[in-house]
Parts: sequence; C-alpha cells; structure tokens
Amino acid sequence: MEAQRLETQLGFILEVEQLKQIFRQTLLPGDKRRENDAEHSWHLSLMAILLVEHASAEVDLLRVLKMLLIHDVVEIDAGDTFVYDQAALEDKDEREQKAADRLFGLLPSDQATVLRALWDEFEARQSPEARYAAALDRLQPILLNFHTQGAAWRRHGICKAQVIACNEHIQEGAPALWTYVRKLIDEAVERGYLAP
Amino acid sequence: MEAQRLETQLGFILEVEQLKQIFRQTLLPGDKRRENDAEHSWHLSLMAILLVEHASAEVDLLRVLKMLLIHDVVEIDAGDTFVYDQAALEDKDEREQKAADRLFGLLPSDQATVLRALWDEFEARQSPEARYAAALDRLQPILLNFHTQGAAWRRHGICKAQVIACNEHIQEGAPALWTYVRKLIDEAVERGYLAP
Repeated sequence: MEAQRLETQLGFILEVEQLKQIFRQTLLPGDKRRENDAEHSWHLSLMAILLVEHASAEVDLLRVLKMLLIHDVVEIDAGDTFVYDQAALEDKDEREQKAADRLFGLLPSDQATVLRALWDEFEARQSPEARYAAALDRLQPILLNFHTQGAAWRRHGICKAQVIACNEHIQEGAPALWTYVRKLIDEAVERGYLAP
Repeated sequence: MEAQRLETQLGFILEVEQLKQIFRQTLLPGDKRRENDAEHSWHLSLMAILLVEHASAEVDLLRVLKMLLIHDVVEIDAGDTFVYDQAALEDKDEREQKAADRLFGLLPSDQATVLRALWDEFEARQSPEARYAAALDRLQPILLNFHTQGAAWRRHGICKAQVIACNEHIQEGAPALWTYVRKLIDEAVERGYLAP
C-alpha cells in the first residue's frame, strides 16, 4: 500500500520534471538564452524567503513556497503564456484549468486536493500569500528584463504603459517592491531598454 | 535605509541567478541535455513537499525547503562536483566554504547568518531536516539516471557498488525511499543501465 502510494508520487514527480523544457520569453543575463519554468520557479522561491519582510501582510512562508513551486506546472500542458500577449490570454484560463485537472490528478487524491487548492488560491490572488507570491512572479521577469537591457521587451515591442498595467498588482502583495519596480521602469525608459 | 537593504537583497538575488548556468552530470529524460543546479533545486524542493511523509523523523518542512533552495548556490564559485569523482571530492569542502563566505556575505548580515547556518546544517547532515534534504538530493539524480537508461552512469563507467556506497545515507533520512532506490539499482543492473 505504502509502496504503491510512493510509486504514484514518483510518477507525478517524473511527469512535472518536464517543466525544465517549458521556455519563457525572459532571457537570462548570463548567456541570453530563454529561461525555463523550473529555473524561474526556483528563483522565485528563493526570492520569497529573502524578501518576505516586504510583503504587505503577514504571510505563511511555507504556503507561499508551496504555491511558487507548483504555480507553473500547468504550463507543461498549457504552454507558457506571455503576459503581454492579449490573444493568448483569452483562452489561458481554460487551457490551464484542463492542465491542472490532468496533472494534479496524477497525485494520490489527498495530495491532489491540497495542491490544486493552492494553485487555485495562487490564481485567485485574494489571500496575502497569493498576493505576495504573485508580486514576486512579476518582479522577477522585470529584474531579468532590466539586466538584459530590455531584451524581451524590445523583441516584442512592449512600452512603459503596458509594463505598468500588467505589473501594478505587485503593489497589493509588496508595496516596497512596487516602489522599486516603478523606479526601474523609468530607468529602463531613460536607458532605451523600454519604449516610452 | 529600507531601500538600501532591498538593493542589497536584490544584489544577492541577481548574483545567485547564475545557478542556472551551473551544469550537473545528470541528463534530463526529455531532451538528454545536462540538468542545471537551479532546475535541480526546484525539483528537489517540490519532492520535499510531496514525500515528507517518508522522512525518518518529523521535520520542519519550511527549514527543509530553505536548505534545498540554497544548498547548491556555492557551486556558482566552486563548480559542480560529481559525487563519484574522488579526486574532485578532496578539495570540495575547501572550495565550497570559500564560496559560502563570499556568496552569503553579499546578503544583509542577519540574513547571511541565517542562510549560512542552514547551509552548514545541510552539509553536516546531522539534523532530521538535513538528513531528509540530503536523501532527496541523492534520490533525484538516481531517478533521472534510471529514466535516461543510465546515461550518466554509463558515460562515467560507474558500477553498482559505487552507487550503493555513495547513496546509502538516503536510508538515514528516508528509509522507504532507500528501499525503493535499492530495487531501482538492481533493476538498472538487470536492464544494463548500470555495471554490476
């Protein structure tokens, strides 16, 4: 019984291993290749530990980390959706719900329920934990974009107003991080990394 | 003051971003490229959440996740040391201590102290959290090796006795995982993935 349960858990662990093949639009400062979702999830999780004092409310850090470690696994089936791609955003929710059904459904049912609830919570962005996690999920690509001279912004012709509109909810989860990001956006425009 | 502290924290976050360029010996089942440390750290952290019921003692999962998310950052300076490479293991400790001094030293001092202590604890493998984390750090490459038909084992001419000797401490942190791994090792030999 225990051996069967472990097999099921390892089945999920091997399935979501594919997150290492899901590439994002963000380029890495080091070698300018596209970042994948597994690397992104690790980076966010480490950021969550270090920046928790900037969260807008007291948060349960363990719950934040669980959310961040699983928040992108649906992209194994649904693909990465660029936040500035309006057309792709239209059916994003439907694609991701279906992916969540299949992927979390591979787990033992007690764990499937817990992880699916955490993923739903992250997506809903209502709890302090989800708001803080979502703020980090937006801060990280902005940092990488800035430190690659706006590579992904320039490639897709993104302008300042779009970056502000798409990311201002950072404010809800971590006001000090939004203050920082606003300055970074202005500096990006000044340096020619981002269209005014 | 708060802005300065945030700058310091983000400086560390950008520095350790380089973990995405540190490649391990393990190949990925998907596209047979080498796994990097950031992907590996994400995968272990997710495994820690799902497999915690198999830990040999009650563990504080938040501490385990913090350890796993930072356990390899020293490899940015010290490089990845293949566990079966006896020559490289000789000065591994010295290289990694120096790396830990520099990297954790980039953080605000209160956070540097906490993260350095967690890293030291992981390395010492004495606490239940460190033993469980270390067990996962060994289980994961074995899983990937098995599911790439022993690619890294075969490339380096590793045999069964070496795999057992290097990994049997999995037993200390998670006995059920070691039972599973022992069967997997025997199956790897039977299938020709691993030299007898």
